[in-house]
Amino acid sequence: MPHAASQKLPPNAIIGILGGGQLGRMLAMAAAELGFRVHVFAPDADDCPAGEVSAFRTQSAYDDEAALRRFANAVDVVTYEFENVPARTAEILASIRQVRPGARALAVAQDRLPEKDFIASLGIETAPYAAVDDDESARAAFRKLGPRAVLKTRQLGYDGKGQAKVSSEAETVEAFARFMSPSILEGFIDFEREVSVIAARSADGGIEAYDVVENEHRNHILHRTIAPARVASTVNENAREIAARILANLDYVGVIGVELFLTRNGRLLVNEIAPRVHNSGHWTLDACATSQFEQHIRAVAGWPLRSAARHSNAEMVNLIGDDAKDWEVLAAEPNACIHFYGKRDIKPGRKMGHVTRLFAKE
Amino acid sequence: MPHAASQKLPPNAIIGILGGGQLGRMLAMAAAELGFRVHVFAPDADDCPAGEVSAFRTQSAYDDEAALRRFANAVDVVTYEFENVPARTAEILASIRQVRPGARALAVAQDRLPEKDFIASLGIETAPYAAVDDDESARAAFRKLGPRAVLKTRQLGYDGKGQAKVSSEAETVEAFARFMSPSILEGFIDFEREVSVIAARSADGGIEAYDVVENEHRNHILHRTIAPARVASTVNENAREIAARILANLDYVGVIGVELFLTRNGRLLVNEIAPRVHNSGHWTLDACATSQFEQHIRAVAGWPLRSAARHSNAEMVNLIGDDAKDWEVLAAEPNACIHFYGKRDIKPGRKMGHVTRLFAKE
Repeated sequence: MPHAASQKLPPNAIIGILGGGQLGRMLAMAAAELGFRVHVFAPDADDCPAGEVSAFRTQSAYDDEAALRRFANAVDVVTYEFENVPARTAEILASIRQVRPGARALAVAQDRLPEKDFIASLGIETAPYAAVDDDESARAAFRKLGPRAVLKTRQLGYDGKGQAKVSSEAETVEAFARFMSPSILEGFIDFEREVSVIAARSADGGIEAYDVVENEHRNHILHRTIAPARVASTVNENAREIAARILANLDYVGVIGVELFLTRNGRLLVNEIAPRVHNSGHWTLDACATSQFEQHIRAVAGWPLRSAARHSNAEMVNLIGDDAKDWEVLAAEPNACIHFYGKRDIKPGRKMGHVTRLFAKE
Repeated sequence: MPHAASQKLPPNAIIGILGGGQLGRMLAMAAAELGFRVHVFAPDADDCPAGEVSAFRTQSAYDDEAALRRFANAVDVVTYEFENVPARTAEILASIRQVRPGARALAVAQDRLPEKDFIASLGIETAPYAAVDDDESARAAFRKLGPRAVLKTRQLGYDGKGQAKVSSEAETVEAFARFMSPSILEGFIDFEREVSVIAARSADGGIEAYDVVENEHRNHILHRTIAPARVASTVNENAREIAARILANLDYVGVIGVELFLTRNGRLLVNEIAPRVHNSGHWTLDACATSQFEQHIRAVAGWPLRSAARHSNAEMVNLIGDDAKDWEVLAAEPNACIHFYGKRDIKPGRKMGHVTRLFAKE
């Protein structure tokens, strides 16, 4: 039977992590700092950034039921580094060990339609949206939300994949035909900034939210995060309160990333939620006493959270593809906190590492 | 042939670490943050804190020449977590790969007599001392350094082992007979505080010294470190300058720990040097942008150092033996940065972890 939610895992307990990428790697290191052992489950044959810093590793497919059962029985709790954990995978694991965050968080975050419905049900604003399931609903959605809108696949989109800007009924129908997948149309938001909040909730209901940060994307991939965001303090408070409300209403355990649009008149619209540690929270490794990775492990292990306070301001820049070739320049830069993920091959668009620069708090 | 000293290792290079304990573990995690892969060489069969967070592990004895050669050929540079690396071990490794810090640092730090001679040769003060090789030199040493003195074995002493306070010629002879090992007698120092400096030197000669810290021991084991030490700023500057002089004169590459006595009239006497990361530098993990572990890995990899500046003041307390049972209390303490080492069995005197508490800088 799964552990009771109130149980605290002792040091030396084994944290199971689904996924072997950089988020899993940074989670594994945070777990090791607290004395936990880590078991990584990932299908990747060679490049497994998380496996290289973990005590145990299973290399199997996410639909290998026998391997999943062995893994669940070998660990004390299960978490994951990516939101697209197949429902059947989560179900098998949850029948043996507690999976944190839980099934509801995964269900909401995996599909843009229930995600938007859930956010709206909390009285939190989103971009206006409509489901697109066929040509007719595509046209109706555009008539309602145009003249500029974005068609997005409901599932499995990331880093701009499965998204298309549309400016006519015909373009909407055409994009939908290309996606061949249930989608939603969102009214175009002329936002001033993209911001995000990283927040955590513990099993006992405690919530800690980091200050809202400001994100810049290039080619739909996060390029730079500025912490804190250059926004009014009321915006910061509102954003953190939105994250807290989402966490509480999902009975969530772990770290969540909430991406928001800040409009020119100061309104905050939730864009999407990620039920995991988030790229826009990497700065917390260097600028806070407690990083998002430690908060997540604490929550998953049933421990209370620590303060999300920041000792320094920070700017985080992703090292994408060939950016990694600049390692020697970065190594010589006095103010660069360097994080490389141990990935062997540089590929265009691949997140190879990140660098955080710290600045004194005003 | 060993790499040239000026070569900088790229991310994904392999750092070889001799020793599988907590210092190796924290070095391994710092290396992984920078993108290096780690290969740990340690004889320990089961409990290997460093091995659990490293990509590769060799489990062999330190005198297994074939294993040492395989290890050296499999890594890009070699470092170590303990000063008592056998000379022959270091020699085999150094014939294949650069070993950092180098042979001279090991030779000086492994034997209290050349260590004291070296310190004195730099014009740096130590406790008055004399070699004890037989009963006659034991008596002569006591006559010169008494009425209170400490006999110490020249080699392999740690945590108070191989030390005896003596207050007569007879006691000195008796302690020497018990040690059955070449020793030195040191005149007793009525010090006000024990302090230490953690400093690093890079291959290009750059030096960074952390502020001097203050150490409290219990049962000859470090109990608490207060950073910075509560001493005059001139004492801090003197201590850091002493560390820098030692580093430069050993042509040292890596982190060194320099333990000193501060006398009641403000004099600094070097007690001993540790050619490795040091327990009294663990606070740098949480209170500095760059920890002693990252500085060491940077130096060993041929990278420049970063600033040793501190963003917070800190107090570090070791978790020894049963202290580890307090994990649940510590987990609930808002200001406790927790570090457990993943050791399976609690034993009296065993370093199980440490906790650092941060405070605002005045």
